[in-house]
Amino acid sequence: MQTLAELAQIAGGRVRGDAEAVISGVQPFDEAGPEDITLAQSVGYLSRLTETNAGAVIVPCDFESEIRPLLQSENPKLAFARVLAHLRREPFRAQGVSSLASIGSGCHIDHEVTIEPFVRVGDGVVIGPGCTLRSGVSVGDGCRIGNDCSLHPNVVLYPRSQLGRRVAIHAGSVIGADGFGYVFDGEQHFKMEQTGIVEIGDDVEIGANSCVDRATFGATVIGRGVKIDNHVHIGHNCRVGEHTVIVGCVGISGSVSIGRNCVLAGQAGVIDHINIGDNVTVMVKTAVTKDIPSGMTVSGQPGRNHGDELKIRAVLRRLPEMYKDWRTIKRRFGIED
Amino acid sequence: MQTLAELAQIAGGRVRGDAEAVISGVQPFDEAGPEDITLAQSVGYLSRLTETNAGAVIVPCDFESEIRPLLQSENPKLAFARVLAHLRREPFRAQGVSSLASIGSGCHIDHEVTIEPFVRVGDGVVIGPGCTLRSGVSVGDGCRIGNDCSLHPNVVLYPRSQLGRRVAIHAGSVIGADGFGYVFDGEQHFKMEQTGIVEIGDDVEIGANSCVDRATFGATVIGRGVKIDNHVHIGHNCRVGEHTVIVGCVGISGSVSIGRNCVLAGQAGVIDHINIGDNVTVMVKTAVTKDIPSGMTVSGQPGRNHGDELKIRAVLRRLPEMYKDWRTIKRRFGIED
Amino acid sequence: MQTLAELAQIAGGRVRGDAEAVISGVQPFDEAGPEDITLAQSVGYLSRLTETNAGAVIVPCDFESEIRPLLQSENPKLAFARVLAHLRREPFRAQGVSSLASIGSGCHIDHEVTIEPFVRVGDGVVIGPGCTLRSGVSVGDGCRIGNDCSLHPNVVLYPRSQLGRRVAIHAGSVIGADGFGYVFDGEQHFKMEQTGIVEIGDDVEIGANSCVDRATFGATVIGRGVKIDNHVHIGHNCRVGEHTVIVGCVGISGSVSIGRNCVLAGQAGVIDHINIGDNVTVMVKTAVTKDIPSGMTVSGQPGRNHGDELKIRAVLRRLPEMYKDWRTIKRRFGIED
Repeated sequence: MQTLAELAQIAGGRVRGDAEAVISGVQPFDEAGPEDITLAQSVGYLSRLTETNAGAVIVPCDFESEIRPLLQSENPKLAFARVLAHLRREPFRAQGVSSLASIGSGCHIDHEVTIEPFVRVGDGVVIGPGCTLRSGVSVGDGCRIGNDCSLHPNVVLYPRSQLGRRVAIHAGSVIGADGFGYVFDGEQHFKMEQTGIVEIGDDVEIGANSCVDRATFGATVIGRGVKIDNHVHIGHNCRVGEHTVIVGCVGISGSVSIGRNCVLAGQAGVIDHINIGDNVTVMVKTAVTKDIPSGMTVSGQPGRNHGDELKIRAVLRRLPEMYKDWRTIKRRFGIED
Repeated sequence: MQTLAELAQIAGGRVRGDAEAVISGVQPFDEAGPEDITLAQSVGYLSRLTETNAGAVIVPCDFESEIRPLLQSENPKLAFARVLAHLRREPFRAQGVSSLASIGSGCHIDHEVTIEPFVRVGDGVVIGPGCTLRSGVSVGDGCRIGNDCSLHPNVVLYPRSQLGRRVAIHAGSVIGADGFGYVFDGEQHFKMEQTGIVEIGDDVEIGANSCVDRATFGATVIGRGVKIDNHVHIGHNCRVGEHTVIVGCVGISGSVSIGRNCVLAGQAGVIDHINIGDNVTVMVKTAVTKDIPSGMTVSGQPGRNHGDELKIRAVLRRLPEMYKDWRTIKRRFGIED
Repeated sequence: MQTLAELAQIAGGRVRGDAEAVISGVQPFDEAGPEDITLAQSVGYLSRLTETNAGAVIVPCDFESEIRPLLQSENPKLAFARVLAHLRREPFRAQGVSSLASIGSGCHIDHEVTIEPFVRVGDGVVIGPGCTLRSGVSVGDGCRIGNDCSLHPNVVLYPRSQLGRRVAIHAGSVIGADGFGYVFDGEQHFKMEQTGIVEIGDDVEIGANSCVDRATFGATVIGRGVKIDNHVHIGHNCRVGEHTVIVGCVGISGSVSIGRNCVLAGQAGVIDHINIGDNVTVMVKTAVTKDIPSGMTVSGQPGRNHGDELKIRAVLRRLPEMYKDWRTIKRRFGIED
């Protein structure tokens, strides 16, 4: 429970109206009650402030109203997310290592951790303070897990995986499985041993049932602040730059390099050995088959400049009509089939 | 073991021929033996009834023959499925809670359940009679699981997930992981806490390694009778209407609303905040980027009316030819490149 | 640690230069040190042999140089993979059955196995010598696992799954979940019981978080030597021929037959009841909607002969230009919109 003034400080905003209004919850516009704060960012919501029962409303900087106490912010959605995190994020409480967990030899596990039943930790593992390993998690030999990481149920870390601080990995995701590498010997596929590891930077979050494969040599690297959704596949030896976002069901082949602050939208795919610059946007379902320079937006199959793709799509809609006219023109021209 | 007459009653059909024929199994046409019943629905199978060794054959209503005892049905495949379920579905037998399971405090777990080793159940969980939780299942705090549910190995339910009755979830699927929501603060992605839940209706079946994310607020809702295949991703705050079918590898972004009795075919994708009506068919690999009214069939990338898409595809095949003629026509017209 | 001469024998190659050079490791060209062997296959690497510190270099048969001791091979990459496997593959060491595993009744489990904590093995299971079952693995009743198999953490085998010898399955993959089969009864989807199994041949490797569904009747069959990447979905009753390669995120519907030595590239999809011949290549993201004869390469959505698809794509790039000219030509011709 906080006053609006206190929340404004947390959110980085300014109060208009009753700064002592007491707020205990956060709710969407239409569900909020007198002790909740809510968000009104678009004109659609701002124009009907009388309709919410919220005790306070987060609004853009330049918006004024007497109807409700306001929390003005340059980035209202960010302010909302900050207030929500402050009021709802559950504080970590170390519950120690369950007697039903299995811990290997030579591990350094901080006392301030929660390790649930049926967690298997291999030999020589280092786990920092503030970590939570939920039931069914498997941590291979020689893994290092930084402070304040959260491994949800049934996450698997293959041996020697390295996690930074505040890494969250959701249920069922697999870090460090063998990369997909074989050499055909004329009869069958001979396996290229995958001797490398996976390194995951600070503040990375990975969704459920995703995979990041270990490198053949060296490391597959997921940069600081990267956010990965569910069902994403990242092949061996990839490098993903800081703060890049990879949306659900994206598949990235081996040895792909992706820059900083990119967005790869849902079900996009990238073939192997591709270089993608910084600030690139790859639209949904794009097949990336060529390098992409920084700043570009690509779409299509194969992927191309999004503007060019849109022009092609615009004509595609008229293609049946063009075809009909083409038949007419051919006939008049006397061009034979 | 049943007589054909008894099976006809179960299947909702009529016997022609020996109603006392004894049937103990169900097999495909070419593998069936004298104590098996089989299915012949198409002309291809009906015309070669002499070739099956089956003791009885399920056929359409209007089909007559003396060659084999027949079970006539208005929907032969359905009759076959019903007989198969009757003869082969294993009855539930409660084996109780394994001493190797870990059960939290304040749970209400019916006596008539099977909970295998290495199942982790959190605090305050309610589990109805007839449920099976196989090894490695993780049930978060405050979950409610209705009667006769089946959670296959390593299924994960995040806290407060709600399951109706007769819900089956196959191995490795994850219900209630955090939705994928962040706000960029100019430097990094600030997490939008995901405070909602997942609600799954009666008679829903979910395949292996699929994910349904929890809502940001409120609930992600999977309606009664929905069938979901393997590797399906359903984002936060989606609503899927009753009896809709979602085939393998489909990806659905956040806040998508899908009506009743739809079919989303394999590898289709739906961007966020889309509304799809009732009885919609989304063909394989379609990229749904616009709302779809009820009853429509869509295909293509981006998705459009399937008839229009087919017309475009028909012309695409002739495009190289059109190009050649276009060059000729341009030359004759004196249009410069 | 080996001499170059010994490694040449293992790799099937010939030494040029110091056959007694001692090699203890394998590294990429730019990271290798004096006790490492490395690979130089392309002109790019072969032309800068002075720049590697490697103690020896694997090169093509016809390449000669005095700069470094050489291991000449007809297939340098294969020779490299063989040397790598020889020097780095960890030999199997049986650790027995963990006291924290749960083993059913009537099993035949060889003494020479490693079964980690929290592994659940059902009743009547057969496990051959040399097998490793990592933590969280679940093996259903009646499964048979051949010699030298490796099941990584949280792999699930449904009842009666059959694995050959030297099968490796990576973390989170699910073998034998129910196929996706229902019959609509006018109101809801009635489940077609899935009574069959999955059979996996010798030397198959399956990546992480993949699924192979059990057959409705009979068996879903994965042939000898097949290699399957992460996030691959193989539907019920499929048959995949020997040594076929299936890359990440491919989805294959039910009752598909795929021949020998095929390659299905990333995110490709195959609709149900398709027959694919031998030596077929399916390019990335292809939607296979028709049978494919042996030897063909297909791409596109829907998939077609890759050469035809490339011709269409070449014209697509010029489509906006064609459209412009078409408008001009129509106007001159007096064709109305």
